Amino acid sequence: MKLLRVGVKGKEKPAALDKNGKFRDLSSHITDLNSDTVNFETIKKLESIDLESLTEISNSERIGACINKPGKFVAIGLNYSDHAAESGMDAPSEPIVFMKATSSINGPNDDIEISKDSKELDWEVELGIIIGKDTKNISEKEAENHILGYCLVNDVSEREWQLKKMGQWVKGKSHDTYGPIGPYLVTKNEISDINSLNLSLDVNGQRMQTGNTDKMIFNVFFIVSYLSKYMTLQAGDIITTGTPPGVGMGKKPQVFLKAGDTIRLSIDNLGEQNSKVVAE
Amino acid sequence: MKLLRVGVKGKEKPAALDKNGKFRDLSSHITDLNSDTVNFETIKKLESIDLESLTEISNSERIGACINKPGKFVAIGLNYSDHAAESGMDAPSEPIVFMKATSSINGPNDDIEISKDSKELDWEVELGIIIGKDTKNISEKEAENHILGYCLVNDVSEREWQLKKMGQWVKGKSHDTYGPIGPYLVTKNEISDINSLNLSLDVNGQRMQTGNTDKMIFNVFFIVSYLSKYMTLQAGDIITTGTPPGVGMGKKPQVFLKAGDTIRLSIDNLGEQNSKVVAE
Repeated sequence: MKLLRVGVKGKEKPAALDKNGKFRDLSSHITDLNSDTVNFETIKKLESIDLESLTEISNSERIGACINKPGKFVAIGLNYSDHAAESGMDAPSEPIVFMKATSSINGPNDDIEISKDSKELDWEVELGIIIGKDTKNISEKEAENHILGYCLVNDVSEREWQLKKMGQWVKGKSHDTYGPIGPYLVTKNEISDINSLNLSLDVNGQRMQTGNTDKMIFNVFFIVSYLSKYMTLQAGDIITTGTPPGVGMGKKPQVFLKAGDTIRLSIDNLGEQNSKVVAE
Repeated sequence: MKLLRVGVKGKEKPAALDKNGKFRDLSSHITDLNSDTVNFETIKKLESIDLESLTEISNSERIGACINKPGKFVAIGLNYSDHAAESGMDAPSEPIVFMKATSSINGPNDDIEISKDSKELDWEVELGIIIGKDTKNISEKEAENHILGYCLVNDVSEREWQLKKMGQWVKGKSHDTYGPIGPYLVTKNEISDINSLNLSLDVNGQRMQTGNTDKMIFNVFFIVSYLSKYMTLQAGDIITTGTPPGVGMGKKPQVFLKAGDTIRLSIDNLGEQNSKVVAE
């Protein structure tokens, strides 16, 4: 299934894509897509619905973040070896883990705010994992049974705040609008090989990032297993898995976002995002 | 007011201390103390209740975490100059910010799990700030109007995972049970000077940490203002503000927790926690 949330900010309705790509209203079945409802039980229930019997929602309506208020928004750093190199850092020997504030979550096509104090705003197209049940101390082999699906993520990053403000990356990863997710929560059965998806990102129509998940240093199953030793992942949690080469910080000379810039990103099977950068 | 959550894990009832220190059931007024209800509007409503007209709950019942499922659990590192020194690190020139997973949150007297892979489990008594409304880009002078209250926090930390596993502290701060909070959410009107509270922590009856919030490098108002530039703080968010000297990592020789150890911690006006370390 492809699940999404449609409507004005704060009043989105849960919806699903039907086989013709139309948005169908799930409100009579679930109240929202959030940490209480994004889990395997819900998906099983939703899979039995005849989507075409549900009310259609116009596809011209705004699409919101595909999960509302997840419990955690975990992120993996430097997970593509080429990106580590362009960042001037060694490829990690085990996953680098940080958090994005859940308040940074944004709709896939919503504006991205550039604060007046921001000088180094950057982009990162990433594959997001969505967890389906409590996940603690599991093996890599068990990981797939804990993954509910995937989504497209832009891990928007302010490099000065991330790297030059007394350590700990969370500071540059957490501003409002720095976490566009969606358009869809795509259940894993729709993806034939998660370790072979193309990713790309354009700024102002110019290709900046090109990658494939087959170049991940740590694949999604390893990441879920690894994290589960350090924290319990819960249904609805989002884990974004690192970005391929081509971020602005890695360009020569460096390129950062400014008000008016447009960003388009996509991953095979997961849809695309189209955002504009605006002054805060 | 002193607010708390009482009952078995996952089924706690919201409660308040009355003037005789008895627990009074708030269930008929609010469903829970969580990110939907911990805010200034709720407190105003609760303040008008005659607590002694409410059902008493036995004070022998378990006390849960004083907030359920906050949106964020933000933490400040090295915020007491003596603690920075004992950690072998320079005192920071601006706040070091990291996150604890919200899934680490634990009741104040619940057991703390030591994983079989954990070798360097440590304690940190800290003052926690609880936010009362949306907080973005505010000045230090405005900060007090955004703080709803305070609570006692043990920022339990696995030092090997925090410091020796490819950077980013979140990995050593987020395991289940590493975030005991409470017993009480104490509204700010009950505290005459937040910048002059004694903190202490004992392990197995031996005093390990002694401090006072007057030794903070960055005080609570500065911290709230500072964070609000990097992320929007929301009602119910918890910010734990750093620990005074005396952590196990700073002892010579170093001392770490093992199964069977008991931890007692307290802060003036905020109550105390009594936990036992148990094998996972």
